Amino acid sequence: MQKSVKRASETAGLPPGTPVHIGERKTEHVRITVMDYDESRFEEKEMKSAEECFPFRDKPTITWMNVDGLHDLPVIEKIGECFGLHPLILESIVNTQQRPKVEDLQDYIFVVLKMLYLGKGDSEVTGEHVSLVIGCNFVISFQESKGDVFEPIRDRIRTGKGRLRKMGSDYLGYALIDAIVDNYFIILESLGDKVEVLEEKLIGRPAPQTLRGIHRLKRQLLFLRRAVWPLREVISGLERSEAGLIKKATRLYLRDVYDHTIQVIDTVETLRDMVAGMLDIYLTSLSNRMNEVMKVLTIVATIFIPLTFVAGIYGMNFKHMPELEWRYGYVFAWGLMIAMSAFMLLYFKRKKWI
Amino acid sequence: MQKSVKRASETAGLPPGTPVHIGERKTEHVRITVMDYDESRFEEKEMKSAEECFPFRDKPTITWMNVDGLHDLPVIEKIGECFGLHPLILESIVNTQQRPKVEDLQDYIFVVLKMLYLGKGDSEVTGEHVSLVIGCNFVISFQESKGDVFEPIRDRIRTGKGRLRKMGSDYLGYALIDAIVDNYFIILESLGDKVEVLEEKLIGRPAPQTLRGIHRLKRQLLFLRRAVWPLREVISGLERSEAGLIKKATRLYLRDVYDHTIQVIDTVETLRDMVAGMLDIYLTSLSNRMNEVMKVLTIVATIFIPLTFVAGIYGMNFKHMPELEWRYGYVFAWGLMIAMSAFMLLYFKRKKWI
Amino acid sequence: MQKSVKRASETAGLPPGTPVHIGERKTEHVRITVMDYDESRFEEKEMKSAEECFPFRDKPTITWMNVDGLHDLPVIEKIGECFGLHPLILESIVNTQQRPKVEDLQDYIFVVLKMLYLGKGDSEVTGEHVSLVIGCNFVISFQESKGDVFEPIRDRIRTGKGRLRKMGSDYLGYALIDAIVDNYFIILESLGDKVEVLEEKLIGRPAPQTLRGIHRLKRQLLFLRRAVWPLREVISGLERSEAGLIKKATRLYLRDVYDHTIQVIDTVETLRDMVAGMLDIYLTSLSNRMNEVMKVLTIVATIFIPLTFVAGIYGMNFKHMPELEWRYGYVFAWGLMIAMSAFMLLYFKRKKWI
Amino acid sequence: MQKSVKRASETAGLPPGTPVHIGERKTEHVRITVMDYDESRFEEKEMKSAEECFPFRDKPTITWMNVDGLHDLPVIEKIGECFGLHPLILESIVNTQQRPKVEDLQDYIFVVLKMLYLGKGDSEVTGEHVSLVIGCNFVISFQESKGDVFEPIRDRIRTGKGRLRKMGSDYLGYALIDAIVDNYFIILESLGDKVEVLEEKLIGRPAPQTLRGIHRLKRQLLFLRRAVWPLREVISGLERSEAGLIKKATRLYLRDVYDHTIQVIDTVETLRDMVAGMLDIYLTSLSNRMNEVMKVLTIVATIFIPLTFVAGIYGMNFKHMPELEWRYGYVFAWGLMIAMSAFMLLYFKRKKWI
Amino acid sequence: MQKSVKRASETAGLPPGTPVHIGERKTEHVRITVMDYDESRFEEKEMKSAEECFPFRDKPTITWMNVDGLHDLPVIEKIGECFGLHPLILESIVNTQQRPKVEDLQDYIFVVLKMLYLGKGDSEVTGEHVSLVIGCNFVISFQESKGDVFEPIRDRIRTGKGRLRKMGSDYLGYALIDAIVDNYFIILESLGDKVEVLEEKLIGRPAPQTLRGIHRLKRQLLFLRRAVWPLREVISGLERSEAGLIKKATRLYLRDVYDHTIQVIDTVETLRDMVAGMLDIYLTSLSNRMNEVMKVLTIVATIFIPLTFVAGIYGMNFKHMPELEWRYGYVFAWGLMIAMSAFMLLYFKRKKWI
Repeated sequence: MQKSVKRASETAGLPPGTPVHIGERKTEHVRITVMDYDESRFEEKEMKSAEECFPFRDKPTITWMNVDGLHDLPVIEKIGECFGLHPLILESIVNTQQRPKVEDLQDYIFVVLKMLYLGKGDSEVTGEHVSLVIGCNFVISFQESKGDVFEPIRDRIRTGKGRLRKMGSDYLGYALIDAIVDNYFIILESLGDKVEVLEEKLIGRPAPQTLRGIHRLKRQLLFLRRAVWPLREVISGLERSEAGLIKKATRLYLRDVYDHTIQVIDTVETLRDMVAGMLDIYLTSLSNRMNEVMKVLTIVATIFIPLTFVAGIYGMNFKHMPELEWRYGYVFAWGLMIAMSAFMLLYFKRKKWI
Repeated sequence: MQKSVKRASETAGLPPGTPVHIGERKTEHVRITVMDYDESRFEEKEMKSAEECFPFRDKPTITWMNVDGLHDLPVIEKIGECFGLHPLILESIVNTQQRPKVEDLQDYIFVVLKMLYLGKGDSEVTGEHVSLVIGCNFVISFQESKGDVFEPIRDRIRTGKGRLRKMGSDYLGYALIDAIVDNYFIILESLGDKVEVLEEKLIGRPAPQTLRGIHRLKRQLLFLRRAVWPLREVISGLERSEAGLIKKATRLYLRDVYDHTIQVIDTVETLRDMVAGMLDIYLTSLSNRMNEVMKVLTIVATIFIPLTFVAGIYGMNFKHMPELEWRYGYVFAWGLMIAMSAFMLLYFKRKKWI
Repeated sequence: MQKSVKRASETAGLPPGTPVHIGERKTEHVRITVMDYDESRFEEKEMKSAEECFPFRDKPTITWMNVDGLHDLPVIEKIGECFGLHPLILESIVNTQQRPKVEDLQDYIFVVLKMLYLGKGDSEVTGEHVSLVIGCNFVISFQESKGDVFEPIRDRIRTGKGRLRKMGSDYLGYALIDAIVDNYFIILESLGDKVEVLEEKLIGRPAPQTLRGIHRLKRQLLFLRRAVWPLREVISGLERSEAGLIKKATRLYLRDVYDHTIQVIDTVETLRDMVAGMLDIYLTSLSNRMNEVMKVLTIVATIFIPLTFVAGIYGMNFKHMPELEWRYGYVFAWGLMIAMSAFMLLYFKRKKWI
Repeated sequence: MQKSVKRASETAGLPPGTPVHIGERKTEHVRITVMDYDESRFEEKEMKSAEECFPFRDKPTITWMNVDGLHDLPVIEKIGECFGLHPLILESIVNTQQRPKVEDLQDYIFVVLKMLYLGKGDSEVTGEHVSLVIGCNFVISFQESKGDVFEPIRDRIRTGKGRLRKMGSDYLGYALIDAIVDNYFIILESLGDKVEVLEEKLIGRPAPQTLRGIHRLKRQLLFLRRAVWPLREVISGLERSEAGLIKKATRLYLRDVYDHTIQVIDTVETLRDMVAGMLDIYLTSLSNRMNEVMKVLTIVATIFIPLTFVAGIYGMNFKHMPELEWRYGYVFAWGLMIAMSAFMLLYFKRKKWI
Repeated sequence: MQKSVKRASETAGLPPGTPVHIGERKTEHVRITVMDYDESRFEEKEMKSAEECFPFRDKPTITWMNVDGLHDLPVIEKIGECFGLHPLILESIVNTQQRPKVEDLQDYIFVVLKMLYLGKGDSEVTGEHVSLVIGCNFVISFQESKGDVFEPIRDRIRTGKGRLRKMGSDYLGYALIDAIVDNYFIILESLGDKVEVLEEKLIGRPAPQTLRGIHRLKRQLLFLRRAVWPLREVISGLERSEAGLIKKATRLYLRDVYDHTIQVIDTVETLRDMVAGMLDIYLTSLSNRMNEVMKVLTIVATIFIPLTFVAGIYGMNFKHMPELEWRYGYVFAWGLMIAMSAFMLLYFKRKKWI
């Protein structure tokens, strides 16, 4: 997460609206793909240059243009020019640290989202910056790298199943957002599993590694939370959008995504509550174990220290020590020591320490 | 609770409005029962297929159709088609992880609630997903399995006692919601009892199991909270519903349920506060006990360590040790040791450790 | 507090608007008293049956009817019928767990409040459920048992002092609410005293009983809080009531009670803050004492353990131990031991442990 | 603070609007002073009785009447009658526990504030109850005792410097409030100094007295907070006052005081945050020291206990112990013991305990 | 931070609107520079006196006047007079403790901000008080000392690159605010680095200095937070400003700064969360280490104390001790001791302490 703060300082001092790519360069070269469809027709193409896309702008069909890779500024700028995007919007597209937001301009709606992935070995949640520009007959999506959660949508466009081919660009925009939000549930499932595993470990035998696990989980939830909380406002902003771009039929679907978002937030907060509770359990377990260790030490020391003292007494070399001469002096000493330890044991028993 | 997150990921990627049953399959086959009544007449039937219910749609009498079992999608879809339910509504009906919510569509109101049960031995709170569709002359309720809290309402319909038979479908809907909310008090009573039992245990003798009990209680309250909090918005949403379905006479009753919901939330929060306080007491008890153990160790060790040293001194084998030759050397040694321990005991007395 | 949850489950399953008495039965038989007055006249009576009160309904004078005892449902129902109270209102009157609330119906305003008492020995705060029905020329108050905080108001009616006899039923209603809120200050004073006593004990010598005292105080404040917080909304609801029952002159007085309520809430929150702080102090004191105990043990053990070792050395029975033969061997041993302990003491001094 | 709760219970049961003096009696007799001025003229007088002030009411000049001492009710009541103050306002004037508030009546605005002082030795923050009645051509201020923060304002009236003499009573009211709020900065400065001193002590050497200091600071901040928070609403209430008393020119000044109030609140909250952090540091320091003590004990004990055991072995009196007869038995024993302690020291070194 | 409270008390008692310089005097003499430009022309000058600037007021070109140094009141007052600034505005300009705020007067907008710097060695965040007066054709900026984050803006004016020269004074004002907010990211980056370094230290080996580091970080974040939170309101206040000074084209840019501010706040809160979590880890590490130390002590003591007791037994000098005479008495004693320690070790093994 630190890294996300780091590069932001690079733009300090530049004139606003200067698009500067902030973030890691996740892909080698920019790839642009276009899907163009209406109810009856469908076309899919990979473009060689940004210019090839321009004819689609004025076609009556719905065009979905997907751009993978944000570091090649001239390409982004050419697209921006062709589709009339404001310089500040371009800046937000290439700034991978931009929080999720919605901007309702006259001719298009601009949406920023975070697509989340599980890293290798499910160990780390990583995010990808996704921007959507929803126009009256087109949707442009910008991603940091290839690979996304939109494959099922592409399939639905290709096969023409479901409602998608029959509806407008707003519905396509909704479908993309829905795919991203749906994917959060997979992340949450994985984190939920981790919480369960950690809880079982805690109840069994807490170790310092468990603590590190709790800490890592906490940070991932913090990261998730930052991606998810602003989403609520984004989607309710979309739903209440006053521009004519969002049709009434789509609003009902947006309310559905909104519901899902609330559920995601709810689950994140519940997981956070549970992780916070785990730290308490961990600390209490530590205290419990410490108590147990102390008790053993106390019992052993408290029993043997007086006995050793008795043995010390009769190890003294005084000339005149009557007990040493007694016939049953040794037996007497043993008797004394056994009596003392019996008394101690009874005392501990009454205190319920043993 | 984790499980509720798990299956949600199964729908990721499907077109929206595709009903997919999420959650455990709690019953073998779907059972549909219908109660049809007006002020003078009453009829109760178990249906063999979904189609049998359709004639009731156009009757002027009030029809309550209850569906137990959500996994048989074709049945749900047939009902949806007949009563004109939106695909997204069908999706919410079969998604058992849907949070409580209200959707006010033109022809009907859709309500999602959680019905709560105590598991075997009162040890676990489990929830059941309940959806209500309230139309102008019908109410359809969907449940995960047989067995519910609606039996008293059925009795009131059968016997015709009270207001129920005289009023419309909105009142029936209210009655069902009221039954669910009323049942929460039984859960709260059971949890309240557990809190009391745990507190008594804590004040008596805290054991590691008590900690586990506190933890379990905490999670159940977290679970309850998730079911109850959204309810407030649901019921106030119903009350303020602008569609003509909710009549004015019913609104007063809804305000009453709203009050009950607030009381439930209030009690859940109070119980949460109390459980949080219990953890503090537990930790403090642990510290107290640790202190006591340490004190015994300190007293015993601090008294005997110097005495043992004295005994050690006179156990040395030096050729020239005048005390060893003394007539009353042994007595002198005892005197020294008794004086030392008396001093120690006085010191501890002054410190109020004994 | 638990008990308050318990009985609520008894009504689960009953038709709404069925008055069921929930809570302890605090009095043997229901007592109804009536005070009827206008500026010039005044009459006070104890009624034998509910029916006797009905003539007062249609008189132009102001009538205050007070009902002590809520368990005799037929009496309550008769009154409800005569004064046209809605069944849900009757249910709230006899449900002693109803939270404070205000209902603004057309013909009357219904207010629920909690009257608080100090138990025997000031040790426990107990609450009584009070409902007020404020009509255009009457006020009906329902209480759980005899004995209340309204005696000064009765005196003011009897003697005709002050504004009370000159003003309407809304002012009487205000006066009753004011009496209840004023009484909260007495409770707060008592709790404030307890806080002070506990703090002094804490600074002196914390004992496990102190912890229990803190815990009890915490629960009483939790209880108080539940009674007081909803009051704010209740009184501001009354003040903004749009029905014509509350006259403008009375509104200023209601704002005054509102101010008092805020002050009560404020004090409760401050006391809660202070009690929470006390737990911190208690825990820190425990740690401090533990530290002190450990220090004594450490000092004694650390000084004597090496000395005892030296004594042990010269207690060994080797044939060839040159020191044992020395003339000043014994003195040398003592010198060694004194040097060692001096070194230790200096070390501790430098560490500021002694 | 407790005391402030105590006396409030004295009024419980009295008719509302009965002024009863609540709080300590801080001065012997009531003193009334009047300053009467317009742009050209200025007059200052100390009155012998309340009646002397009445002529000022109808003069066109601005009159500032200051009353020191609240316990003499007839005096307060006479002033109230003359200037037409509502009985509830009088009650608030003499109730020294009244929270800060603003009441916007038709003919005057009533403001309650807390003037804060540092006690002797800067050790305690004490508050004084101040009420202002701002009319169209007069301001009446009520204080508990002589001595206030208004002296600079009196000087400005006397000398005619600045804007004060040229503007109306609303500006005078503003000036008085501004003087009180400005004085809070002096209190905050003193508390800030204390925080700094305590922090330095903490970093140096925490002692139980430090804990008490933290606790005292916490309570003073709690006290300050209660005085300051309601102020925000009071001043924004004044600023938005719809009565014509507050002129437009003065509103800008009120917004300035509002800014100062926010700054005071901000600083109080920051100080509270810092004090809360200090408790954490204190506790952690305690743990750190405990750890250090334990380490010394562990090292000493762990090294010498095995050595003493070896010495004990060769102090045994068995007839047949070959080592005792060895030529270099004693040297061998020493060698053994040195080897053991060297091993121990290395182990601790590796563990980084020494 | 304390210092910022200190001097504020100096103005207590002065008439409002009296500009008094509060804060350190950071520069020797006041420096005034002017940049005057329109799309085609550009002029840059350093002024010798305040009067030289006045001609720029009535020119149609955009004038940016920058004042470094706030302690020379006559200079500030002369500027204020010339540009018609309200006395309260002048007071805010020279009061370096003024919180960030926006005042929307008729002829100009007044904005207070905090410019933040990293001290030497990046060790401390220090703030500088910056005020902006945005008029219809001028912007005046007041700073405490030379050196600022506006250099890139000056370059853009000089070179005429970007939008700046083409737009009005409102855009210049926006550019200055944007520069300040952008600079916060540099601070956050540095603090984020420190958090990372501290976390690595914590996971490695927590030392008391780490604690101090955490504490220092906490205070810097507290400081940052105080500078950043009010900014949100300031910028949204500017954006919604109803005066005609802010043109529609600029509002979009302001919304962009607003977004950045939210991102800064978000990051500050996340860092605060992380630092709070670090304290927990630190405390838990301490407990863990304590546990480990205790375990070693317990194991060593518990093993050797009984052995030493056995050695003590056979060191007693009783005349009649049969074991001492045995042929294999010594071997027997060793056998006994080895058996005892083996048993102990097994016990610890089973407890998983070793």
